[in-house]
Amino acid sequence: MKKTKLIYEGKAKKLHETEDPDLLVVEFKDDMASLDGRKKGVIKNKGIVNSKISTYIFNFLDSYHIPSHFEKSLSDREILVKRLEMVPIEVIVRNIATGSLCDKYGCKEGDSLQYPIIEFYLKNDKLNDPMMNEYHAAAFGLATPEEMRTIVRFATKVNAILKSFFIRRKVRLVDFKLEFGRFKGQLYLGDEISPDTCRFWDLETGEQLDKDRFRKDMGRVEEAYQEMLRRVLNL
Amino acid sequence: MKKTKLIYEGKAKKLHETEDPDLLVVEFKDDMASLDGRKKGVIKNKGIVNSKISTYIFNFLDSYHIPSHFEKSLSDREILVKRLEMVPIEVIVRNIATGSLCDKYGCKEGDSLQYPIIEFYLKNDKLNDPMMNEYHAAAFGLATPEEMRTIVRFATKVNAILKSFFIRRKVRLVDFKLEFGRFKGQLYLGDEISPDTCRFWDLETGEQLDKDRFRKDMGRVEEAYQEMLRRVLNL
Repeated sequence: MKKTKLIYEGKAKKLHETEDPDLLVVEFKDDMASLDGRKKGVIKNKGIVNSKISTYIFNFLDSYHIPSHFEKSLSDREILVKRLEMVPIEVIVRNIATGSLCDKYGCKEGDSLQYPIIEFYLKNDKLNDPMMNEYHAAAFGLATPEEMRTIVRFATKVNAILKSFFIRRKVRLVDFKLEFGRFKGQLYLGDEISPDTCRFWDLETGEQLDKDRFRKDMGRVEEAYQEMLRRVLNL
Repeated sequence: MKKTKLIYEGKAKKLHETEDPDLLVVEFKDDMASLDGRKKGVIKNKGIVNSKISTYIFNFLDSYHIPSHFEKSLSDREILVKRLEMVPIEVIVRNIATGSLCDKYGCKEGDSLQYPIIEFYLKNDKLNDPMMNEYHAAAFGLATPEEMRTIVRFATKVNAILKSFFIRRKVRLVDFKLEFGRFKGQLYLGDEISPDTCRFWDLETGEQLDKDRFRKDMGRVEEAYQEMLRRVLNL
């Protein structure tokens, strides 16, 4: 499938149109940004790691009947995906209290949550991605109540599937972000699933194996990403 | 019913124990505060207005089978209520976009919402009452999923009932706050329903007839509260 036109370039990914109007090419970059883009860096081969991990996970989820935009891998850092009409909502699923959750609600860092927490954030840089809920989604015309119920069902199922998957890889799935979009009247999981969008802690040592190493200047970011790739692929 | 012990004094209300461990006396004060208590004032007879409006509304809601803590009126500014174990969540119901909703989501001031918005805030001054949802409620042990569903059902019903009630009084119910609590294993509506906890706009002129007059230094606060009392009582 030939790339025809670059239609989006973000912090970590480029999107290209193809000859098929229903399909896009996602190109994973090595660039890394945090603090709304105020902190920047390059992590060698991050794009390759994220492309391969996302490919593996989307295929794995497909085997559990979770529909995603993923079609096939094209190269080390490119995947072919369905062209979704994105729902402008970030869905966060949390199993362990850390990060902004603890700042905001005063819960103890590292505590296992009695029940998983699902949060919704409006994707809007200018408004600083405010937290929202299913009633805002309906009132502002972002997603129907039925779509929000589907999103919650998928998010809950993805969490259950991936929690066990990562335990087998000796990794705790602390929290992660999902995005969804519409394609021919149906909802699909979009975006990526990678150390950029998940928090992974080593099951035994608690070592952080994700983007937090970059956010917190902990060093050995590249090594952590490579380690996560090895674990996902079971090498 | 004799008051025995003052157990709580807030910005706008005092709570007293009585000889019956299941019952409290709520005393409505004339004191007014906003901006987390940084702005203070006294509105003459506000306590009387809020006591009488709450009494009327709780009775009215009771006729629609919405259970509340209200037992009976004791004096101009005192009501007898069930002693609830409060759920530490503020429930906001919005019909028209205004105030913090517009700041946060960039919607247009004064727009009617296509569907009512229900929002939940953790009652915690130290954490600045962060927005939350039913998953936080379950994970932090604040309320069970079933209780949250009951709260949504009550809030939706109260909104439908009061929207029509106030239209007949030539008032738009813009938004309002509810609080709930447990009593002998059941959920009850608690707190108050008054111009302190609702936004009321005159149906024809759009004039604000609520606490926003105090928040925004618009003047004629006492007159607005008296006008709302007249309208509620249909005088």
